[in-house]
Amino acid sequence: MFNEFGKIIKLTTYGESHGVALGGIIDGFPAGMPVDFDAVQRELDRRKPGQSKIVTQRKEDDKVEFLSGIFEGKTTGQSIGFIIRNTNQKSTDYEHNTRVFRPSHADFTYFHKYGIRDHRGGGRTSARETANWVVAGALSKQLLPLVSINAFVSSVGDIQVEKSLYDLDLTLTDSTIVRCPEKSTAEKMIEKIAEIKKDGDTIGGTITCIIKNVPVGLGEPVFDKLSARLAQAMMSINAAKGFEIGSGFEGTRLKGSEHNDIFIKGGKTLTNNSGGIQGGISNGMDIIFKIAFKPVATIMKEQTTIDENGDAAIIQGKGRHDPCVVPRAVPIVEALAALVLADFWLFNKVRRI
Amino acid sequence: MFNEFGKIIKLTTYGESHGVALGGIIDGFPAGMPVDFDAVQRELDRRKPGQSKIVTQRKEDDKVEFLSGIFEGKTTGQSIGFIIRNTNQKSTDYEHNTRVFRPSHADFTYFHKYGIRDHRGGGRTSARETANWVVAGALSKQLLPLVSINAFVSSVGDIQVEKSLYDLDLTLTDSTIVRCPEKSTAEKMIEKIAEIKKDGDTIGGTITCIIKNVPVGLGEPVFDKLSARLAQAMMSINAAKGFEIGSGFEGTRLKGSEHNDIFIKGGKTLTNNSGGIQGGISNGMDIIFKIAFKPVATIMKEQTTIDENGDAAIIQGKGRHDPCVVPRAVPIVEALAALVLADFWLFNKVRRI
Amino acid sequence: MFNEFGKIIKLTTYGESHGVALGGIIDGFPAGMPVDFDAVQRELDRRKPGQSKIVTQRKEDDKVEFLSGIFEGKTTGQSIGFIIRNTNQKSTDYEHNTRVFRPSHADFTYFHKYGIRDHRGGGRTSARETANWVVAGALSKQLLPLVSINAFVSSVGDIQVEKSLYDLDLTLTDSTIVRCPEKSTAEKMIEKIAEIKKDGDTIGGTITCIIKNVPVGLGEPVFDKLSARLAQAMMSINAAKGFEIGSGFEGTRLKGSEHNDIFIKGGKTLTNNSGGIQGGISNGMDIIFKIAFKPVATIMKEQTTIDENGDAAIIQGKGRHDPCVVPRAVPIVEALAALVLADFWLFNKVRRI
Amino acid sequence: MFNEFGKIIKLTTYGESHGVALGGIIDGFPAGMPVDFDAVQRELDRRKPGQSKIVTQRKEDDKVEFLSGIFEGKTTGQSIGFIIRNTNQKSTDYEHNTRVFRPSHADFTYFHKYGIRDHRGGGRTSARETANWVVAGALSKQLLPLVSINAFVSSVGDIQVEKSLYDLDLTLTDSTIVRCPEKSTAEKMIEKIAEIKKDGDTIGGTITCIIKNVPVGLGEPVFDKLSARLAQAMMSINAAKGFEIGSGFEGTRLKGSEHNDIFIKGGKTLTNNSGGIQGGISNGMDIIFKIAFKPVATIMKEQTTIDENGDAAIIQGKGRHDPCVVPRAVPIVEALAALVLADFWLFNKVRRI
Repeated sequence: MFNEFGKIIKLTTYGESHGVALGGIIDGFPAGMPVDFDAVQRELDRRKPGQSKIVTQRKEDDKVEFLSGIFEGKTTGQSIGFIIRNTNQKSTDYEHNTRVFRPSHADFTYFHKYGIRDHRGGGRTSARETANWVVAGALSKQLLPLVSINAFVSSVGDIQVEKSLYDLDLTLTDSTIVRCPEKSTAEKMIEKIAEIKKDGDTIGGTITCIIKNVPVGLGEPVFDKLSARLAQAMMSINAAKGFEIGSGFEGTRLKGSEHNDIFIKGGKTLTNNSGGIQGGISNGMDIIFKIAFKPVATIMKEQTTIDENGDAAIIQGKGRHDPCVVPRAVPIVEALAALVLADFWLFNKVRRI
Repeated sequence: MFNEFGKIIKLTTYGESHGVALGGIIDGFPAGMPVDFDAVQRELDRRKPGQSKIVTQRKEDDKVEFLSGIFEGKTTGQSIGFIIRNTNQKSTDYEHNTRVFRPSHADFTYFHKYGIRDHRGGGRTSARETANWVVAGALSKQLLPLVSINAFVSSVGDIQVEKSLYDLDLTLTDSTIVRCPEKSTAEKMIEKIAEIKKDGDTIGGTITCIIKNVPVGLGEPVFDKLSARLAQAMMSINAAKGFEIGSGFEGTRLKGSEHNDIFIKGGKTLTNNSGGIQGGISNGMDIIFKIAFKPVATIMKEQTTIDENGDAAIIQGKGRHDPCVVPRAVPIVEALAALVLADFWLFNKVRRI
Repeated sequence: MFNEFGKIIKLTTYGESHGVALGGIIDGFPAGMPVDFDAVQRELDRRKPGQSKIVTQRKEDDKVEFLSGIFEGKTTGQSIGFIIRNTNQKSTDYEHNTRVFRPSHADFTYFHKYGIRDHRGGGRTSARETANWVVAGALSKQLLPLVSINAFVSSVGDIQVEKSLYDLDLTLTDSTIVRCPEKSTAEKMIEKIAEIKKDGDTIGGTITCIIKNVPVGLGEPVFDKLSARLAQAMMSINAAKGFEIGSGFEGTRLKGSEHNDIFIKGGKTLTNNSGGIQGGISNGMDIIFKIAFKPVATIMKEQTTIDENGDAAIIQGKGRHDPCVVPRAVPIVEALAALVLADFWLFNKVRRI
Repeated sequence: MFNEFGKIIKLTTYGESHGVALGGIIDGFPAGMPVDFDAVQRELDRRKPGQSKIVTQRKEDDKVEFLSGIFEGKTTGQSIGFIIRNTNQKSTDYEHNTRVFRPSHADFTYFHKYGIRDHRGGGRTSARETANWVVAGALSKQLLPLVSINAFVSSVGDIQVEKSLYDLDLTLTDSTIVRCPEKSTAEKMIEKIAEIKKDGDTIGGTITCIIKNVPVGLGEPVFDKLSARLAQAMMSINAAKGFEIGSGFEGTRLKGSEHNDIFIKGGKTLTNNSGGIQGGISNGMDIIFKIAFKPVATIMKEQTTIDENGDAAIIQGKGRHDPCVVPRAVPIVEALAALVLADFWLFNKVRRI
């Protein structure tokens, strides 16, 4: 109910940051798909901690073990169980936080909702959970071989990509540790993050995602609009505070005569303010959306706060945290997009007799 | 599956713009709530067409008839069926569109997805559907009498509210036909829309929503985060292209030390960049979010387009359309917010033993 | 959640026996199917009250009005709303029951669960609800034109069909008012019911259903086994107390060597103890199941009971009730079977790449 | 979707008989319940193979490892992941079956549905899956400490329990290896199974279950009737072919005046033909139901069959199989009953304001 996503292909997950393992079950995945295990692990490696100097230094192998649903290299149509063991959970880093609440962190809300305080660390609120999503997303990508999904970091703090989307060479995204395909901007971002980290602080940013070769017809109005499902998925990522598709907030300033995407012979449109979705259904143009991520809440600076009794206290972060969430969120965004598309792609097969 | 929203309180809907009726079923609503039928109709009246010169002139009474689930003025715990008859469906306005696709409208995607063209008009893609949502939202509001939900128009095109949120008097929202509580700005907006309408064009805008007195603990991680569900709901509204909560896109520019909401004695926070939600769960502060609406696609100007064969064609809108969607979308935003909150409020009752 | 059935094709319903209307929404029905409206009404007519002397004399037209999702005679892929107005709700028949509970009726449990007593009559517990199911089932049947679903009355009290299933001419089922295809047995059943009715009493019975031409592969283990879903559906019918498939309870007495259905060249089996389902998936043989219905609880005889305070009371049924539920349950069983099969038929299209 | 059960407390599972592990995720379980791990393992031990001479000799420890959702001995409200490693999967036993289909087994239907043949053995169709259910059921039982759920073997082949239900001492159920509380009958059953096993054959049987101290009000009409959900659950068990509640098939022979359960002061009833459920909702009386299990399909005798090409073949079972499924199915029945009740118990908390 709560820890599941999708309708025909449904991912259900479990696992805490400082527990013994993460994992999940992918139900409803069609039989007969050859699995590229290396491709799955590559996606996990893109997300894992400790990859570079600008991300958390926690070391995790993030090796996934598939437990069922795949036989002789192919999916069997049965539920796919998988597990990722935690190997580097240093809960001692966190013990000092036991009684106080980290500002803008989920400590406070989890404690009041569930009546439980997991003093080992972020527990279920940790971004470690997203490793599960990457596994499911990597399989979903393989189900849609013609579709290409490319996310990249479009801003860090005030530093933004300068070129327009179609002038960027997206094959360069992973060539920089910040995952920005514009080299000069990437350098500024890296410098900025390094500086922020040195200062014990964190910084926000945005990720833009473009999806090509999506067939016309994906999405199911009225409450399963493709745009609405993508929004739900992306807003599920830790630290996400905003989502926009196509012209987004900027498009609100335009007139219909400026904003409308004029059809040309064959069904393509001259412009793409719609971001590839009209009436909640893909129209065959590129799907383009952007997500806002706030700065990570855990900083290495002293902050005033309260404890479990509601009394004033002082907190100073320790442990190993990302100074900026966006570089590692790139494969997460792609994974969730793949999950959404694969699910709708299957639905679309049964929407006409 | 597709035309339903919510989990314990689930709304399922039907109805086309030019069919005989709209309606829905509200399942899972608790027994024993006295229903204020006038309050339901008031919300419908706020949404209905023909209220003022700046909205569509289609005339609909939008009278809801409850068919079940309410007995002697109280909910019975049984499914609540309701129906809203269409009384003013002029499909002749639309007939000229039969063979051509309106730019940036869902005509094209529906035709290609379902293989059906409803030449009477927008069919299921029409915003008439949202009358159903308002009915369900109005009942949900009554389930949460202490919670106050106030949406208002925060921009039309380039014209934006000038005061900060907490300086606005939200009791004034409905005193202007554009539903902006800042009188001077409202006048500019009305003038702008009137001008746009005269020109046969349309314009975008934004709606901001603030929800007060939400108990701590609503929202169910990891995929049913309160923020993610609100995003899905709001992105289901016709013409919605963006959603942000709390600091949103602006917050991506900040450092953690600037963005973090410092707790004060008792559990409130000094600032509210989180927009009332931390880790996907309400923290007791006001929930604040904003939605971007693109300009309505149907304009009264000539546009080039294609027909069902993919050949070039000319289209000119006729019929009765809103020049700007935001004034009428205000009660829709509030209704969906109420649905989301009521559902999570019930769930929260069973999350601890 | 509660008033819905199915996963891709999902029926959600509302309506009380003595309310203004019944109705439902069929979501997920594929686009492009021509609708045979007469066939829908024929199924409703088979179920409706007042058809013969052995069923309730309440008179209802049971005319269905489709409100959406069908355009120019074809399904559009949008949610199909429908309504059946109640025209003959005589709640005065029931007023004397206001304060006392009818033995073995749902009065007591509904009152204690919801805290509400609908003194007009059975409310949501009435078998009038099943008219909604018949509408959805009739459309589902049209989606599966090759499949034939035939239910019939196999026993009334102690009177049982004598011939074996494959010796019966099922085209005769509707030629008797009791819906038993064996004429001589049908006469005895009719006589029995008439006698029971005269005595102010009621009697139980069974319905057997055989489904031919089901493709191999319908059903989704492990919890959506075809047999499990059929059981859930059939046990949802008012007064159902038992369900068995294939050899059922009798098969428990057999040895594996006697019970196993031996495959013959091509994939058919020599016997069909499995009732057409192995491992929860249809195997291409006829699906055969049987449902037990208890005698209707409302009798025209004096019974001791209790009132809402738990005190002793006397009750005597009035009103118009069926002396035996099985003749009218035949089209209901077929409708639910069609719903289950249509849903699994769609799922099966997306279970292999 | 397919491998999940329940609505608020939802169990999702994975795992094949000859894969590396089984496991599942329990989502929606309330926070704050102290977990009795020994009690969980005791239930698993009751189900596990190799317990006695009359069950399969496969040796599995069936040790469950909880991976999340429990902290310091209490549930946290987060999803509970668990895993049971397979330790004794001898797939060589099965290799001879690679190309032929076992009569009345799911080999044939799985192969035709998914296009995959798992030649290691039963795969997902194996009753090993039910170990997952027992884990979830054991936790659910702990959520309902006042409710007692007791299943027992009521027949093996023609050998039936002789005493009436309320004359049996159900504390004796586990004192016999066949799990029949009537010692003299148990001996006959054991002898029968031993004889059947020696002969390389299998035999069917029935299980009866009685649940005491169920609060009034569990169950959610119309499609989530408590009886319908129990039926779905029980018919999900391997080899289940029938389900009846209360008077079941026998009750169809009775008149209403004989069958009705007369209320006595306080709300109890004189008889319990309803089996504790009226209108789909528990009425506070004992819930009583019975399940029919066919003989296990895999026998050690030669049978004619077909191979994957549809050609005639001969098969002779090898491997380690249960000669009779009912002794080990007793804890499975109890586990599923507990799951159903716990889910409805939570729902019932939010059905009235």
